[in-house]
Amino acid sequence: MFGVPGDFNLWFLEQSITGDQVEFVGCCNELNASYAADGAARLAGISALATTYGVGELSSLAGVAGAHAEQVPIVCIIGAPPLDSMKKGALLHHTLADGNFTNMMNCYREFTVAQARIEPVNARQEIDRVLRTCLLEKRPVYLQMPSDVAGIATEPITEALDLRLPPSDPELLRQAISQIVSRLEASEKPVILLDAAADRFALTDLLLELSEKYGIPVAHLIPAKGAVSEEHPRSIGVYAGDGSATAVREAVEASDCLICVGTRFTDVATGLFSHNLDDSVQINLESYSVTINGETLNAVDATELLAGVLRRPVLVRKARGTFHSSIQPAVSFETDGNSIQTSSPVTQVSFWRSFQKYLQPGDVIVTDTGTSFFSSMKLSLPDGVTFIAQPIWAALGYALPATVGACLAAPGRRHILLVGDGALQMTVQELSTLFRHDLKPIIFLLNNDGYTIERLIYGVASSYNNLHPWQYGMLPRIFDEHDRSVVHRVETIGDLEKTLASTNKISKLHFIEVVLLRLDAPDSLMHMARRAAEFDFPQMRRLGAEDKTLRKSKLQGLGLSGNGKKATPMGNGN
Amino acid sequence: MFGVPGDFNLWFLEQSITGDQVEFVGCCNELNASYAADGAARLAGISALATTYGVGELSSLAGVAGAHAEQVPIVCIIGAPPLDSMKKGALLHHTLADGNFTNMMNCYREFTVAQARIEPVNARQEIDRVLRTCLLEKRPVYLQMPSDVAGIATEPITEALDLRLPPSDPELLRQAISQIVSRLEASEKPVILLDAAADRFALTDLLLELSEKYGIPVAHLIPAKGAVSEEHPRSIGVYAGDGSATAVREAVEASDCLICVGTRFTDVATGLFSHNLDDSVQINLESYSVTINGETLNAVDATELLAGVLRRPVLVRKARGTFHSSIQPAVSFETDGNSIQTSSPVTQVSFWRSFQKYLQPGDVIVTDTGTSFFSSMKLSLPDGVTFIAQPIWAALGYALPATVGACLAAPGRRHILLVGDGALQMTVQELSTLFRHDLKPIIFLLNNDGYTIERLIYGVASSYNNLHPWQYGMLPRIFDEHDRSVVHRVETIGDLEKTLASTNKISKLHFIEVVLLRLDAPDSLMHMARRAAEFDFPQMRRLGAEDKTLRKSKLQGLGLSGNGKKATPMGNGN
Repeated sequence: MFGVPGDFNLWFLEQSITGDQVEFVGCCNELNASYAADGAARLAGISALATTYGVGELSSLAGVAGAHAEQVPIVCIIGAPPLDSMKKGALLHHTLADGNFTNMMNCYREFTVAQARIEPVNARQEIDRVLRTCLLEKRPVYLQMPSDVAGIATEPITEALDLRLPPSDPELLRQAISQIVSRLEASEKPVILLDAAADRFALTDLLLELSEKYGIPVAHLIPAKGAVSEEHPRSIGVYAGDGSATAVREAVEASDCLICVGTRFTDVATGLFSHNLDDSVQINLESYSVTINGETLNAVDATELLAGVLRRPVLVRKARGTFHSSIQPAVSFETDGNSIQTSSPVTQVSFWRSFQKYLQPGDVIVTDTGTSFFSSMKLSLPDGVTFIAQPIWAALGYALPATVGACLAAPGRRHILLVGDGALQMTVQELSTLFRHDLKPIIFLLNNDGYTIERLIYGVASSYNNLHPWQYGMLPRIFDEHDRSVVHRVETIGDLEKTLASTNKISKLHFIEVVLLRLDAPDSLMHMARRAAEFDFPQMRRLGAEDKTLRKSKLQGLGLSGNGKKATPMGNGN
Repeated sequence: MFGVPGDFNLWFLEQSITGDQVEFVGCCNELNASYAADGAARLAGISALATTYGVGELSSLAGVAGAHAEQVPIVCIIGAPPLDSMKKGALLHHTLADGNFTNMMNCYREFTVAQARIEPVNARQEIDRVLRTCLLEKRPVYLQMPSDVAGIATEPITEALDLRLPPSDPELLRQAISQIVSRLEASEKPVILLDAAADRFALTDLLLELSEKYGIPVAHLIPAKGAVSEEHPRSIGVYAGDGSATAVREAVEASDCLICVGTRFTDVATGLFSHNLDDSVQINLESYSVTINGETLNAVDATELLAGVLRRPVLVRKARGTFHSSIQPAVSFETDGNSIQTSSPVTQVSFWRSFQKYLQPGDVIVTDTGTSFFSSMKLSLPDGVTFIAQPIWAALGYALPATVGACLAAPGRRHILLVGDGALQMTVQELSTLFRHDLKPIIFLLNNDGYTIERLIYGVASSYNNLHPWQYGMLPRIFDEHDRSVVHRVETIGDLEKTLASTNKISKLHFIEVVLLRLDAPDSLMHMARRAAEFDFPQMRRLGAEDKTLRKSKLQGLGLSGNGKKATPMGNGN
């Protein structure tokens, strides 16, 4: 449980620390706490967020909305004013002082799947209802806990929360199983296409069994990165419309039986809607329904459905071979034409090439929504790697606090944070919480001196895309009273190799500032940014001029003419 | 205009920097930007906040809600997805990817007084309507600006925005004037009681004229701190229920004609509802209505009303004398019994005694909602001092970003920030924006090693009220590439006196860490905290034990037994 104390939740927090079933982790602010809760829930299955009324809960709303978008279950527990004072409409601090006590919950209603105000008379029922919804729908829920209700005793709880879904309708289930089996038997080119939901609803293993049984290649959308390892023999990699590798695109778009799992064809997942898929060949599984041939069968549990399909014998086993080696290159980063010399400046291409080799099975990778996210999409992930990001909500600043949550939820694993300078500035104080709990992630700060992803879309040299330069390398010293960290500054390929090697030897938090040129970005991101500009500002008159600037800068070595060939360190030592 | 760029608002930001009427100030994150906009609007009369859809606007919602509570006009301009994509329900990033494009505005509807989605067909009318509402109601408004609409040209604007209120109903106005004059003539003990609205609606000068004309003493509620200087001959100081000075309490509660201006008797303003006022003697002025003898007259403009009252001759001038000297002590900080030696450790009492002398006419004081806010209430403010805080919304972390806005809005004045360690950790990155714009406030960090205000309410020694200790004195070096700051660490009264003197000599940003004991707080805050605990947790069983701990700690010198006698600096140098 992550959060921040406030007068209305102090009694509740006191309950939580007197037992031993919940650990409360104080964060520096509430938005950061919500991101930390998100990161923890990705690995632990669920987490909680404890904030105070009004000022606290509204500050974390953006992070909770992000968890809704990304299907992450968080129990938001808000310390509210005393029950009676709310019913009477008292003029209290942390409100608009107008007697309105419905406005906060109204906001959360938009971004959570269940809400309740806890009163003594309904507490047991309402808490159970809300928790159950959170766990079954894998999305955030909202519990408003009046300050004077928090410590009231009820009868002891004797039964575990009932988390069973209702059983599927037997006839619809049978019908769905038969239809899917027939389609698979008849199909020449079936493909499984995963989205994040496959992972959230624990369907991936069943799908891989299906893949094995029928010899079906498995592609994934960007939000399902890491759900299946790129090393899996049937994984063919990411499908992203015209941003896909040619062979993946052909396999997916030419499929005559596309088994989709919770797919949402968003702008980011499809290279701005460049996907070209035939609706009629799709079988869409949701957690409790399935759509086949355009007809939706409700009351069909996806787990029962897949288990049922797997129980049927394969009548016609088609020889579909192994797709992996022919489609997915082991390392997909293009070389940049330079021979690799240790004195060469590090670039996006050389960084990611080295980073690919640095990855180990079981790593947890957290990326923020900048160049690091888009580059990570091309990584070939070893087995058991968890990839944490916000492919839909895409909030800058998410990744550092999410790393706090991830480290606490999976302490035995290696955690790697990839974050840009714009993102780091947003939520930087959560470095404090890493040190407070003696956590030791490896942090790569990709410092490209400004909001590079915005520059690539529009305003390449405009002042609003600039950031104030920080002495980033000094940051750990603010928080680190016990010499628990090592700071590295990486400008060359040699620096990078030496730094990466040292992280395996020294068990400390590593803070690695990688100095990159302002406009250095993988070609895939350049392409995506151009698309985004066309989508967002179709009538924009300066687009031609912008493009010329971008092309020129690229020729001149990816900085901007004049200032900032490299992100400039400040003068006063490091 | 404060904000953060995002892909949906880039074209809008480009418009704003091509003209010369708006300055865009990029902040480190959106919550901070909203606080900065609030600080600027307090001094400039209005400000704007530019964020991107979803991720940006929800991150700043808490700050906007605060501006609503505190009656601060901010124009929130949200860069939204292209109009057509919203109408079609496209699955976009920065949304829940469910086609819902009303959820964000629904949240803002709760905390703004006008909203519009700008379309080419309605842009001129809707923008004017929303701006007019903002300026007339002194509260935030919401403009959703689709990315592809932002740069569209319309006919040039030829007329200024019409900001006139409709004229008062002449009969009701005449009636109100007569009733107020009769009441004043008949009254033996009239008192004017100001709330923040008097200042926001520019009524203070008229009220002081009224005070002068009839010899009426002027008290104020906490949110009106600074609206009238404590040096004003008729100012009798703050009324806060049983938290008032005895003479002020008697004057206000025994008044037979209490002229209230926009008063909201909130928990903080009234010492948890300890006020004792007779409704029947109150005359309540709002900007466009007045309530006299329990009857509300609508369509009465407060400015016209006061002007009308002032035009009437005084028939019976009662000798009411000057209240100031008899009621308001010049410096209200009690001594702490120690003789003042320069080697004595600085305490809350000695700090505020020195700070009182340090104040100059025209200062801008910004305090966060901790010990500094409650202590500031007892300051006697010189003429022309602006006092900026959040007495109602009370969000920790507000004050530092608000100082950015205040400095930019009133560059010629001396700006003083008073902030606690808990608050600083919340929004610390906005120090960056101070340096980016070469701003030079004097920053007092009152470091008492944790959430002291929460400790005083509940959980005096509980872990959730602890903070990770930072090397605060190193913070400016992260952001300050041009040697624009001086860092001070104050532990003794001698340190404090020397530091205060130096700020008058060296024109730089001064960052002054004042090291205080954990539980050192003015008695008024101790009292308030006890009240808050009784209000929030009336059934709390540990209150007795808590009190014992608090009393013991107080005896032991205001730290907590065991750890933290003083906020401990970290070992690695300063």
